[in-house]
Amino acid sequence: MLCNQTKIRVIYADTDAMGIVYHTNYIKWFEIGRGELFRQMDMTYAWVEEQGYGMPLTEVYAHYLSPAQYDQLLLVETEIGYVKRASIRFNYTIWDEFREKALVEGHSVHAFVDQSRRIVRIPSFITDRIKQLEQTGGSHGG
Amino acid sequence: MLCNQTKIRVIYADTDAMGIVYHTNYIKWFEIGRGELFRQMDMTYAWVEEQGYGMPLTEVYAHYLSPAQYDQLLLVETEIGYVKRASIRFNYTIWDEFREKALVEGHSVHAFVDQSRRIVRIPSFITDRIKQLEQTGGSHGG
Amino acid sequence: MLCNQTKIRVIYADTDAMGIVYHTNYIKWFEIGRGELFRQMDMTYAWVEEQGYGMPLTEVYAHYLSPAQYDQLLLVETEIGYVKRASIRFNYTIWDEFREKALVEGHSVHAFVDQSRRIVRIPSFITDRIKQLEQTGGSHGG
Amino acid sequence: MLCNQTKIRVIYADTDAMGIVYHTNYIKWFEIGRGELFRQMDMTYAWVEEQGYGMPLTEVYAHYLSPAQYDQLLLVETEIGYVKRASIRFNYTIWDEFREKALVEGHSVHAFVDQSRRIVRIPSFITDRIKQLEQTGGSHGG
Repeated sequence: MLCNQTKIRVIYADTDAMGIVYHTNYIKWFEIGRGELFRQMDMTYAWVEEQGYGMPLTEVYAHYLSPAQYDQLLLVETEIGYVKRASIRFNYTIWDEFREKALVEGHSVHAFVDQSRRIVRIPSFITDRIKQLEQTGGSHGG
Repeated sequence: MLCNQTKIRVIYADTDAMGIVYHTNYIKWFEIGRGELFRQMDMTYAWVEEQGYGMPLTEVYAHYLSPAQYDQLLLVETEIGYVKRASIRFNYTIWDEFREKALVEGHSVHAFVDQSRRIVRIPSFITDRIKQLEQTGGSHGG
Repeated sequence: MLCNQTKIRVIYADTDAMGIVYHTNYIKWFEIGRGELFRQMDMTYAWVEEQGYGMPLTEVYAHYLSPAQYDQLLLVETEIGYVKRASIRFNYTIWDEFREKALVEGHSVHAFVDQSRRIVRIPSFITDRIKQLEQTGGSHGG
Repeated sequence: MLCNQTKIRVIYADTDAMGIVYHTNYIKWFEIGRGELFRQMDMTYAWVEEQGYGMPLTEVYAHYLSPAQYDQLLLVETEIGYVKRASIRFNYTIWDEFREKALVEGHSVHAFVDQSRRIVRIPSFITDRIKQLEQTGGSHGG
């Protein structure tokens, strides 16, 4: 199963006056996880765009289980939830650095579009790459 | 029905290199809508905190229908979705300035906690205020 | 003298775990002030771009005098500092809502560029508009 | 000379509709550099706070030389500019990943305060640590 793990250090910019990480910042870190998962699949999202595709978000969800604090080291875990004809879902879990406590769980759904922002079938260079990696057990970066 | 409408002007800080508003910023604007709905109920969220309560997010969801652009004027519409024993849900729609096209729909769920972050029953000064406003048809600010 | 005054309400997203507004957010509000100053001059920055120009920042400075808190109403005051051949400077003061206490003072310097990002002379439709408004005493929006 | 080098990967959240990194995000990365410089000195800023001190910004400046793009890898270089009786200055340069082209140069000045936000002399556990590291040539992390 394709799974990426990326570390994030919380800075003051990420926190709010309640003394914890402001809720939209976890969703911003979902983007980091997603980008690093692509890189682990030997692609980059920038390269997907160069091929003439875009992947705008159609949906995002986050479930907040436990707050993160300033200077905490977090682990963002990203997996592909599903690949449909014209959309793709990523699942995320944000953990403490030891992967003992899940702090936030969530997902995002993305449409595939061409340069005129029309919805298109996911190009085979992506679906093939995912199938191939799933068969071989995927790669596990860090 | 309690409903707040607040206007937001998109600035460059809110946009991304796709030329549209970055997806977490709509969720940040949900906070503005929620804060203004409280103000319209003759409370402020700051005052709720002074009474010894907090309302941390437990859940947030956004469905992206159509992107907003730089300098666009948007309308954030906020309603109370439900009030349960220890949690409250807000529903949001972000519209173009003429309220003709919904751009983003979403909701957030919040727990009520005391100063030690223990979940508590929603204080009656809030539930009474909401009931009273719903009976009188609520107020409509802008 | 051209001067714009725009109000900003501090939300949780703007604050940090020190309990005050995170320092880069004041600089983001400088952008709001600058945009509203253009609007007060019967232009928009979006329209300047449609004419084929850009105004990338070359410099920004902020001096922090006193911190702003969650839910505080602030006044962003923006003036043109100077207009040179190919650059323009804006000066900003962020006040409490009663304009009694200056919280942040700063400035930004912007180059004028064409669509290939080459530095160009400021177009006369802008310099003429500024001169004209300065002679007539400018307009004072809010 | 104490100098920290930390790498940052630009994500969409950092960019704006001009297709480049939004200017306040470089200043947010100054915070990352500063935090990592402390860590390299075998302290953390969080620990300094636990000792009863704060280091609020009094001044920040950035000079923008060349824009960074989506997915670019950047190098944030942070040095101590000066240490005065009650204030400290950090100097920053943000480079491309190969340290060939400086993109942004800047600095921040911080006051030392106690828990009541009164300005105090910098504690000797910090000044001694800096002096000691400067004599031994400092450490070079990455």
